[in-house]
Amino acid sequence: MDLYSGHINKLIEELAALPGIGSKSAQRLAFYLINLSQERVNRLANVMIEAKANVRYCKECYTLTDEEICPVCANPDRDHRTIMVVENTRDLAAYEKTGKYEGVYHVLHGAISPMLGIGPGDIKLKELIERLQGDVEEVIIATNSSLEGETTAMYISKLIKPIGVKVTRIASGVPVGGDLEYIDEVTLLRALEGRTPM
Amino acid sequence: MDLYSGHINKLIEELAALPGIGSKSAQRLAFYLINLSQERVNRLANVMIEAKANVRYCKECYTLTDEEICPVCANPDRDHRTIMVVENTRDLAAYEKTGKYEGVYHVLHGAISPMLGIGPGDIKLKELIERLQGDVEEVIIATNSSLEGETTAMYISKLIKPIGVKVTRIASGVPVGGDLEYIDEVTLLRALEGRTPM
Repeated sequence: MDLYSGHINKLIEELAALPGIGSKSAQRLAFYLINLSQERVNRLANVMIEAKANVRYCKECYTLTDEEICPVCANPDRDHRTIMVVENTRDLAAYEKTGKYEGVYHVLHGAISPMLGIGPGDIKLKELIERLQGDVEEVIIATNSSLEGETTAMYISKLIKPIGVKVTRIASGVPVGGDLEYIDEVTLLRALEGRTPM
Repeated sequence: MDLYSGHINKLIEELAALPGIGSKSAQRLAFYLINLSQERVNRLANVMIEAKANVRYCKECYTLTDEEICPVCANPDRDHRTIMVVENTRDLAAYEKTGKYEGVYHVLHGAISPMLGIGPGDIKLKELIERLQGDVEEVIIATNSSLEGETTAMYISKLIKPIGVKVTRIASGVPVGGDLEYIDEVTLLRALEGRTPM
């Protein structure tokens, strides 16, 4: 049903196709945009186009960046012999936010998922193995603790171990501040298995 | 803290400034956009610019439309002597969706709100009064049943009554404090049928 004029409908349609934006939010957003100044709309549109055109993979770690080499990889003070493997740039940012990790990263851009037809060849895995030709001491696997993340972690660990590089996995368990009562059984069991001496 | 590269940060910032989009959604959306093809991003950007540039007020009812006169006002089969007053184009669309209202509309683009400093002169009220010079039998006030909507309804009714045009208010089958946009069609129709003279 065409409730609105052509331009408005087209805009709503495009917005509703974005992830996490339902048809109601798309309507609200569309009218918000139409009520902005032409200047503001042009700016938003240009920022989108510019970002898409200029953002690329870091040649070292494959995170999304404006430069050939991202700031982390370009920093000589980082420990380049420790590589943390993450699924995407947002996960990298989550660890950077802690301000405590001193190594570098490797961004896979996905995780192995037989269900979704994503195989080892579809993520930046070959690129990780290539990096291990250099001087690398430890690979920390920080993929999500979802089914796909765990599968990917297992796969990578089997692939790297023969090369003779130390492989570790970030701990999974009860989140800090988490209330046991609200935590799922799998996590509780994982936390139990991973218990450490006090 | 600059977690991402310049272009990504700028995009996240612009997206987070939109209503209903928090910083987490903005990040998610930004990476989604960067992973789309340049063609898709350009299309979305252009649809936004085009909509902003081409959408304007209907000369009759002031709804947002691509044409000089919106399809409802241009339709000779509609009852042009019955005008439903709504706060915005989304509310108009909500009544159009019922498919049962045969009159035309008047879109105020807001409601009187002393709290927000929005007075009678800030909404399309003068324009409504001008329309009453023509052949109008009834004005149905369908502003929201929020404080602002009720205030606006009262104000309009006091303004119109001396002119000798019948003024009605949609019934309060609409839950108090509710926003027309989110109300189901049956309730909207019930409210229309139960309208009472003011």
